[in-house]
Amino acid sequence: MSEFDFIFNHFAKLGKNQQNFLNDGCEIPVPENQKLVVSKDMLISDVHFFRNDPPNSIAQKSLRKNLSDLAAMGTKPYGYFLAISLPQNTNENFISQFCDGLQTVQNQYKIDLLGGDTNSNKNNMIIVSITIFGFTNKNNHLMPRNNAKIGDRIYISGEIGNGYIGYLIHQNKLSMKNNAAKKNFLSHFLYGNCRNDLGEEIADKADSCIDISDGLLQDLMHICKNSNVSGKIYSEKIPLHPEIKSLINTGEINFLDLFKWGDDYELLFCGDDEKLKNIGNIFEIGEIIESPENKSQIYLDEEKVKNCKGFEHL
Amino acid sequence: MSEFDFIFNHFAKLGKNQQNFLNDGCEIPVPENQKLVVSKDMLISDVHFFRNDPPNSIAQKSLRKNLSDLAAMGTKPYGYFLAISLPQNTNENFISQFCDGLQTVQNQYKIDLLGGDTNSNKNNMIIVSITIFGFTNKNNHLMPRNNAKIGDRIYISGEIGNGYIGYLIHQNKLSMKNNAAKKNFLSHFLYGNCRNDLGEEIADKADSCIDISDGLLQDLMHICKNSNVSGKIYSEKIPLHPEIKSLINTGEINFLDLFKWGDDYELLFCGDDEKLKNIGNIFEIGEIIESPENKSQIYLDEEKVKNCKGFEHL
Repeated sequence: MSEFDFIFNHFAKLGKNQQNFLNDGCEIPVPENQKLVVSKDMLISDVHFFRNDPPNSIAQKSLRKNLSDLAAMGTKPYGYFLAISLPQNTNENFISQFCDGLQTVQNQYKIDLLGGDTNSNKNNMIIVSITIFGFTNKNNHLMPRNNAKIGDRIYISGEIGNGYIGYLIHQNKLSMKNNAAKKNFLSHFLYGNCRNDLGEEIADKADSCIDISDGLLQDLMHICKNSNVSGKIYSEKIPLHPEIKSLINTGEINFLDLFKWGDDYELLFCGDDEKLKNIGNIFEIGEIIESPENKSQIYLDEEKVKNCKGFEHL
Repeated sequence: MSEFDFIFNHFAKLGKNQQNFLNDGCEIPVPENQKLVVSKDMLISDVHFFRNDPPNSIAQKSLRKNLSDLAAMGTKPYGYFLAISLPQNTNENFISQFCDGLQTVQNQYKIDLLGGDTNSNKNNMIIVSITIFGFTNKNNHLMPRNNAKIGDRIYISGEIGNGYIGYLIHQNKLSMKNNAAKKNFLSHFLYGNCRNDLGEEIADKADSCIDISDGLLQDLMHICKNSNVSGKIYSEKIPLHPEIKSLINTGEINFLDLFKWGDDYELLFCGDDEKLKNIGNIFEIGEIIESPENKSQIYLDEEKVKNCKGFEHL
């Protein structure tokens, strides 16, 4: 598998400007009155996805994870660089399906592949490193993690735990009779999720935002620690899929586990109620409060959460 | 090794703006009358460096390889994103030495770490993915690979083969009595090389440029193929270290191997003699000619090179 055939046969189709693939890099033209925002995430097999997951899903999940980072900064995606390392002797079918997955997400978000790098490894690993570029209004502040304010309401953009349940089903650790729900959870785990439209909508309204990639509790803690505040949330206010509610009721899963697993990729943000009240389809789950003894804490249903640690690897 | 302690203890020291490390990404402000140029290269153990090479050298080589891509586009480096995957249980000493290596190159080129991502893998691999950013004059054309013109002279910026000889010494495939030369070759192989000052100097003068990362012949072929021309070069004009000349004379190495191995990271460029004649310390090694039968060829000492294939992995 030579680096060059590889690039030209498949990846070059994913870029508008073929010239970019001939050179080692390219220009990124920044529109007037916009600023360029960059983020970079590497996904590797057996940490972020399984080695034998469909190539199409690995590609989609990788790209959505990066898009989600831009969403959390209220930034409209423009394009991305991809560096990929594949096991020696990876067949062309894999590459073709992987590129199909990228194309699906590209079409959805109107973004292009801008360039990149490929190699093969002897360790049977799949390594996907993406650097994603987006633009946002020059005046926007990127909703930084250290900007939560006491009195801010805490919101999330959608259901928590769907990726976790998808993982359990995928690993045969949980069975589910409802086929539509099962498919939905599996798809969430395999193909990822990102909330870029909402991210852009709240860009000039929210104080602080993060995408939930490590778990609701840990990601809320990131905001709280960096802003030197604490957070108070209520489990009953956190939107859950009806099937997940049943699983909690029957004791098949522990609701706290839902908040400690990654793969949600919903937005968690806080800000002034007045500014955010007209945003549709978001869920107010709590508020930012002063830290007792100057140490950031998360309170869930009025109880201090002892350990907010979230997702580390599969 | 948690992702977060890891970032904060070591990598955050490498960035001017600590805020960048709290969030998932950052803004890259583009100066007026400049354009932003981006390149991305991933280096992995046992392809681009050896698993047991000093962490400091792995870091330096990785960053220089990326700097070299900017050099070939005549672009002044500004900063970089780093995504790194390390074997589980990598000790802090490794990380500390790795960061020292990055700092050394940062100081040399006045660049900063802007952000990134870390994880650990179970395959004992070291994976370094860098996305590098630079600025160049709005009017510069990035010396693209498809812009070589018939009649252009072909130049290189320095000695060829030093990385290859360093590799042979490193692998005990070659012994060398001259200690200073030995050290020089080993250092070239382990710590990398990049020619950014020269890249910037020729940015508005050369037609086409590439950094020699796959081997002189293959990289010249990249330019020729993309420009639909052929190249004619002379081995006697290619600058070689005196020790390498001796090795060729004694038959210990084949001079063609020097031109088929990567790790040179000198610039190979072509352009109008009139525009380039006042650039110091460059070597004219041949010229761009019309392609016979419309198929790009490289002629070395008037003979057609049958196979230009260069470096693929260690």
